Amino acid sequence: MTYCVGLLLDAGILLLSDTRTNAGLDNIATYRKMFLFENPGERAIAIMTAGSLSITQTTLARLSDANEDADSARSILRAPTMLQVAEIVGAMLSDVTTEIAAKMERMSQTAKASMIVAGQRKGGPMRMFLVYPEGNFIEATPDTPYLQIGEHKYGKPILDRVIEADTTLADAEKAMLLSMDSTLRSNLSVGMPLDFAVIERDALRISRTRRIPDTDEGFKRMSNAWSEELRQAFQRIDPL
Amino acid sequence: MTYCVGLLLDAGILLLSDTRTNAGLDNIATYRKMFLFENPGERAIAIMTAGSLSITQTTLARLSDANEDADSARSILRAPTMLQVAEIVGAMLSDVTTEIAAKMERMSQTAKASMIVAGQRKGGPMRMFLVYPEGNFIEATPDTPYLQIGEHKYGKPILDRVIEADTTLADAEKAMLLSMDSTLRSNLSVGMPLDFAVIERDALRISRTRRIPDTDEGFKRMSNAWSEELRQAFQRIDPL
Repeated sequence: MTYCVGLLLDAGILLLSDTRTNAGLDNIATYRKMFLFENPGERAIAIMTAGSLSITQTTLARLSDANEDADSARSILRAPTMLQVAEIVGAMLSDVTTEIAAKMERMSQTAKASMIVAGQRKGGPMRMFLVYPEGNFIEATPDTPYLQIGEHKYGKPILDRVIEADTTLADAEKAMLLSMDSTLRSNLSVGMPLDFAVIERDALRISRTRRIPDTDEGFKRMSNAWSEELRQAFQRIDPL
Repeated sequence: MTYCVGLLLDAGILLLSDTRTNAGLDNIATYRKMFLFENPGERAIAIMTAGSLSITQTTLARLSDANEDADSARSILRAPTMLQVAEIVGAMLSDVTTEIAAKMERMSQTAKASMIVAGQRKGGPMRMFLVYPEGNFIEATPDTPYLQIGEHKYGKPILDRVIEADTTLADAEKAMLLSMDSTLRSNLSVGMPLDFAVIERDALRISRTRRIPDTDEGFKRMSNAWSEELRQAFQRIDPL
């Protein structure tokens, strides 16, 4: 499985993904699930993926091909709006899923994938979409400023408590990392290293990226500090 | 859906369940999901249920019938060990599921249910089992002293951090309630009131039960205090 979370805040877009991929418990590998596209000063787009690796890799490869083909109508670097970017990704994902499903069906198997697509184009608003395997999508709004794919339940409570549209980038980054930390602790199918990225409002470029390996001292410290805080908070709660 | 959690600790067995049942989003009702059986001084048994209400109600009705039928070999109040209690519940659940599945199949639908069965019989150890729809089961152990059914992911992180076999009953009760609180906040299909019960080690009776309605001031205070503690703890965490 996977855990990816994207926040669409007043101050910008934040993205965090794990990298664990498995085909059965004895075939575990590390694959990047966050893909960044930019034309600095004009647009910045991030895509995060969950689900069948064969589907997500093929979809991303075709999206990259379309960007390099000047005649393609499916370039996310040339689409005039973020809505059209989401539509291109949705159509590509749906096409690839249908192709692969036809092959899988012969073996009575299924494969699916979903994606988070976020970004901003010059003159347009920041937008973030969750694209379903069928190619349709939903959009983050100020009422629900975050989207998750993969193993989303373990890390949802902390987001529900902390994240609002006007949360600062620093607080939002912390909340995302703690949300990921809860997921890592409770679910083996989600694993380090992590990929983190920020697209600040109106920056029109990828403002910051960071890969966080399992040896990262800062992340370990944060994780331990959070455990200790929770333990102490727990002790302070009066029984019912 | 449902959230039920059972703890098997050195000091005793604790059980907590919600009561929300839904058939579609516009048909929501309150049904007890915790069922207690005791022959005080000889045995105490608790069963919690998740899944299709038609299956769980029929299974519980037949278990009750078997208790009243002096000739029945399927009485959980007469079974010589907790293992055999789990086997009786598993067989009954599997039989009912198969019967109902035959009816559902005609409509291309499926129905399933799972249960947590816990208790102690005089002279035997406390034991707790998770019974699957197929009737097979797994058992809680000192390494994994809790079992969950239904919407188990939201409330798992707090249990993973706090619960050990030697956790006190008071701390365990608090952790269960906070685990339920996280689930209630993040998932609409889990709802108040809650049913709580304790079977203390070697008490051989239901030591304590409590129904916690949504108007319960203590639970509200605990829930708000936990939110506030989390918010403050979050503020104290240093950014990465």
